[in-house]
Amino acid sequence: ALPDTTPLPDPATAHLVALLRSNPTVVDVVDATDAPPLVSRCATGEDTGVPVAADRVIGGGGFSLIAGPCAVEGGEQLMGLARDLAARGAGLLRGGVYKPRTSPYAFQGLGSDGLTMLRAASAATGLPVVTEVLDAAHVAAVAEQADMLQVGSRNGQNFALLKEVALTGLPVLLKRGFGCTVDEWLHSAEYVLAAGNSGVVLCERGIRTFESATRFTLDISAVPLVKRLSHLPVIVDPSHACGRRDLIIPLAAAAAAAGADGVMVDVHPCGPAALCDGAQALSPAEFGSLVTRVGQVLGRDPQRHD
Amino acid sequence: ALPDTTPLPDPATAHLVALLRSNPTVVDVVDATDAPPLVSRCATGEDTGVPVAADRVIGGGGFSLIAGPCAVEGGEQLMGLARDLAARGAGLLRGGVYKPRTSPYAFQGLGSDGLTMLRAASAATGLPVVTEVLDAAHVAAVAEQADMLQVGSRNGQNFALLKEVALTGLPVLLKRGFGCTVDEWLHSAEYVLAAGNSGVVLCERGIRTFESATRFTLDISAVPLVKRLSHLPVIVDPSHACGRRDLIIPLAAAAAAAGADGVMVDVHPCGPAALCDGAQALSPAEFGSLVTRVGQVLGRDPQRHD
Amino acid sequence: ALPDTTPLPDPATAHLVALLRSNPTVVDVVDATDAPPLVSRCATGEDTGVPVAADRVIGGGGFSLIAGPCAVEGGEQLMGLARDLAARGAGLLRGGVYKPRTSPYAFQGLGSDGLTMLRAASAATGLPVVTEVLDAAHVAAVAEQADMLQVGSRNGQNFALLKEVALTGLPVLLKRGFGCTVDEWLHSAEYVLAAGNSGVVLCERGIRTFESATRFTLDISAVPLVKRLSHLPVIVDPSHACGRRDLIIPLAAAAAAAGADGVMVDVHPCGPAALCDGAQALSPAEFGSLVTRVGQVLGRDPQRHD
Amino acid sequence: ALPDTTPLPDPATAHLVALLRSNPTVVDVVDATDAPPLVSRCATGEDTGVPVAADRVIGGGGFSLIAGPCAVEGGEQLMGLARDLAARGAGLLRGGVYKPRTSPYAFQGLGSDGLTMLRAASAATGLPVVTEVLDAAHVAAVAEQADMLQVGSRNGQNFALLKEVALTGLPVLLKRGFGCTVDEWLHSAEYVLAAGNSGVVLCERGIRTFESATRFTLDISAVPLVKRLSHLPVIVDPSHACGRRDLIIPLAAAAAAAGADGVMVDVHPCGPAALCDGAQALSPAEFGSLVTRVGQVLGRDPQRHD
Repeated sequence: ALPDTTPLPDPATAHLVALLRSNPTVVDVVDATDAPPLVSRCATGEDTGVPVAADRVIGGGGFSLIAGPCAVEGGEQLMGLARDLAARGAGLLRGGVYKPRTSPYAFQGLGSDGLTMLRAASAATGLPVVTEVLDAAHVAAVAEQADMLQVGSRNGQNFALLKEVALTGLPVLLKRGFGCTVDEWLHSAEYVLAAGNSGVVLCERGIRTFESATRFTLDISAVPLVKRLSHLPVIVDPSHACGRRDLIIPLAAAAAAAGADGVMVDVHPCGPAALCDGAQALSPAEFGSLVTRVGQVLGRDPQRHD
Repeated sequence: ALPDTTPLPDPATAHLVALLRSNPTVVDVVDATDAPPLVSRCATGEDTGVPVAADRVIGGGGFSLIAGPCAVEGGEQLMGLARDLAARGAGLLRGGVYKPRTSPYAFQGLGSDGLTMLRAASAATGLPVVTEVLDAAHVAAVAEQADMLQVGSRNGQNFALLKEVALTGLPVLLKRGFGCTVDEWLHSAEYVLAAGNSGVVLCERGIRTFESATRFTLDISAVPLVKRLSHLPVIVDPSHACGRRDLIIPLAAAAAAAGADGVMVDVHPCGPAALCDGAQALSPAEFGSLVTRVGQVLGRDPQRHD
Repeated sequence: ALPDTTPLPDPATAHLVALLRSNPTVVDVVDATDAPPLVSRCATGEDTGVPVAADRVIGGGGFSLIAGPCAVEGGEQLMGLARDLAARGAGLLRGGVYKPRTSPYAFQGLGSDGLTMLRAASAATGLPVVTEVLDAAHVAAVAEQADMLQVGSRNGQNFALLKEVALTGLPVLLKRGFGCTVDEWLHSAEYVLAAGNSGVVLCERGIRTFESATRFTLDISAVPLVKRLSHLPVIVDPSHACGRRDLIIPLAAAAAAAGADGVMVDVHPCGPAALCDGAQALSPAEFGSLVTRVGQVLGRDPQRHD
Repeated sequence: ALPDTTPLPDPATAHLVALLRSNPTVVDVVDATDAPPLVSRCATGEDTGVPVAADRVIGGGGFSLIAGPCAVEGGEQLMGLARDLAARGAGLLRGGVYKPRTSPYAFQGLGSDGLTMLRAASAATGLPVVTEVLDAAHVAAVAEQADMLQVGSRNGQNFALLKEVALTGLPVLLKRGFGCTVDEWLHSAEYVLAAGNSGVVLCERGIRTFESATRFTLDISAVPLVKRLSHLPVIVDPSHACGRRDLIIPLAAAAAAAGADGVMVDVHPCGPAALCDGAQALSPAEFGSLVTRVGQVLGRDPQRHD
């Protein structure tokens, strides 16, 4: 495991850096340890596939469809939705039970009750479950019920959480911090790999920019860029990126065309009534259209598991 | 034509706005004339195709491939390149002869000599020519030689130039200002339409964000968003958006998947030697790969003109 | 204490929201619980002063000078620096012992050894200590040694950490997330107040923008804006905002002029040799110049404690 | 004068650049001509003062107060306001007669009628006039009536306009493009100096960022940064930066503290009724408070001309 603290670096190195920095012709001193070696494409030379269940691998050639409600709201609703999504081609079930909400008074998720509902829906459909964990104190309990742990955008540089999640050994879905560069995102992944867990899937979900017509700005260039820099799989979350139901299908198609290994989308049986992010949830029928559209772009069926 | 100045608005309206604004319960007074009526999708109810030459329409169902050097450097080089591009499926020839350069000491373009070279390359290949105009004083001369006038990103809100270009009656390729919102970009198009010229093609070319691994951030969401808001065609320039040769083909594929009406790319027979933006120029062979890849995503040949 | 999860909202409300959202004339449904009531200026009607020690209050009329090394590197060095800073007018000692580093291989801080050094320097100088906590698992141990807990920019929306820190009852220095809006920052402060801890000091430290000449962009407007929206004190960290030693004094002066309640700056006895962020550390003598300059702008001595 | 076009660079140089670029160990080839030599601090070694009238110099030690309506609306109103501003300490009169409006249907300014009103107000008060020019076709007429020409943010890289304005020989107020870096802004100034006009005053007016509580984000760091990089004076426009009346005085104070050579603010006798940007206009009495507050920060009266 990674230590929380480190001894002082070797003084000779520090002295050399100081000398270089005090030379007025030196613009910058770049530390070679700044490149994330385990995450780098050079580390393996080929694309890594991250297995989530016996027959579910993200990356490594397939195209993964992860779908479900932004927040789990009830067992029956979730069960019905999960069956519908599985029938339409989803490969994994997403659903939040601990929600990072801007306001402390907003709906925070159903917690362990929600985990039980996710487990039941997974048992009935065979869809592995990915769910977000916000708090190191919840990691063990969530890891017992989930097949994959998500670290959300607001925790994209919460290094304590990254280390804790890494130690479960479960695959990790690592969203890009909406204020983070691609370089910082890859370094966050390095925290997980350095802790001995190589099962990281990167998820581009939009960055903060001046454009306000969409909630965030999907950085589609990050997809081929990550593919060049790293061997890890990269997927796209168009729902949180744009925050508008009407743009999600074209953005999912763009992600597939740009080389992403999958997409993750919010689906809700009744979007406008959703307790969280209702404006961006597809209906199950719209999810079906997304699967069809992505298939057209890929020139083949996306990874289906029926 | 649009006037340069306008009389004062009717005092009754101004008074009403003042009254509303001084009411503390009023958050904002939005002027309905702020919506660009001619550019709006409601104006036509269907997609507009912009004819550039007898058999070259941008939008209206086809997918346009616009290619050429960032800057025209010489007649022979351009002629060879244009023939190569035409053979590989390009539909229009781009090439800069007046270049907006950050530094006054950088290469500014060949000017009218470059226009002559473009005209000759067009005559030999049948490719219509699109070239940028920076200065109202050049508009008449450029309009005589070009088939389509480009207004560049730095002039995205140069309303004097927009009006002057509109009056030529030629089709206009309007790049998004890299600091402008989609709403501002559509309003800039409205300046052209309001001056009586309906031949506007919008071009997304990346916006300024904190991410520095790419030169700008391609706002792929702008493609489906513009399609919903406006009847005008929208194309994508991945070369200027990312500034890196190795990302251009996946981004062109993403643009096609997201619903763009075409792409515009920099191609140079010898990228590293290019006088302008060499790091982002495809080789002619790479352009051929782009045409193939875009065709896969579209499920059909992009608009070819052979 | 705040719960980690919440029951489902009342169905009648959810139904109403759904009804409103499905009405095509409704642009948005804004939840009134979205305004942070405890943080709001209306909550108290006057400026809150946050006591850190018997004679050290941040806000409430004084101007606080918080200074120290970005990272604690050794006991003797820290002791010498703390004495120097106290003599030059510093009111609180800052120093990192748990450092959030982009790379897992960069120097992570001295941990509990560093806390002991901070405590000793505080005992010798009377300067209260503020230090960052990254991990809920460290909160209890840090709270025993520190007078004030800092939640850093990367944890600006780490709600689990905010709740844990709040429960210590110690005053909290809450840095703005570099990708967060002022509204989100105030809501993060609301998490602390809602947990029963009203001792929050807000710290503006720069946001991510396209400008690359400075490390971040100091959002100086946030100072008067927060003063209008909230009763909490707000200070400025110019060191992390600009990342350049040569801009820190003018930016500290600007902060004082804009109405900030204090500044926090990195000081190192030998900037170029610093193990962390050396390019932005003032020398002790430069810190003395900062104190003088801030005094000129304020028209009085900043809060001194000798 | 600067040429519109340039011959091809010397082939040996181009060949060398190509060779370097094709070497895989070369990260980038930076052209030394990319530094703006005439604008650089090294060019003079001291601060330049730009004379606008016999007794009005911007920079060179004084602090200039430029005030007036965003748009000129009528002769009597302007005359009354100008007298009021002069009495309260304004040094120059601003007023727009050609307005760059996002929408072609918004009020575009009074044009030459407005110029006559500005001239009359100047004659009555002794305040020199600064006004924006949008169109090269208007430059000669505006130059006859104005004492200083403003190039606005939307034209911050309109190089054709910059060259035309430079040739009048009048001093130029060059606003930073809201999407432009400090480096690009200085290069735009270099266009004016390279054309033989050394009378450039730089004006920081906010950049585009994700923060939406203010209209733009005032980049206060740009003030000391420009002072280090260039000998030209730099002023701040807090009105357009924040777009909110209630933040303007603290931001003007911050500008003075950060080392700016002046401020430019919108003042309107009746803000809520203003035809353009009414939400950000100070009342004349508030302008008086601004003068007092800036004087406190400077520790002396700002440049007054009575």
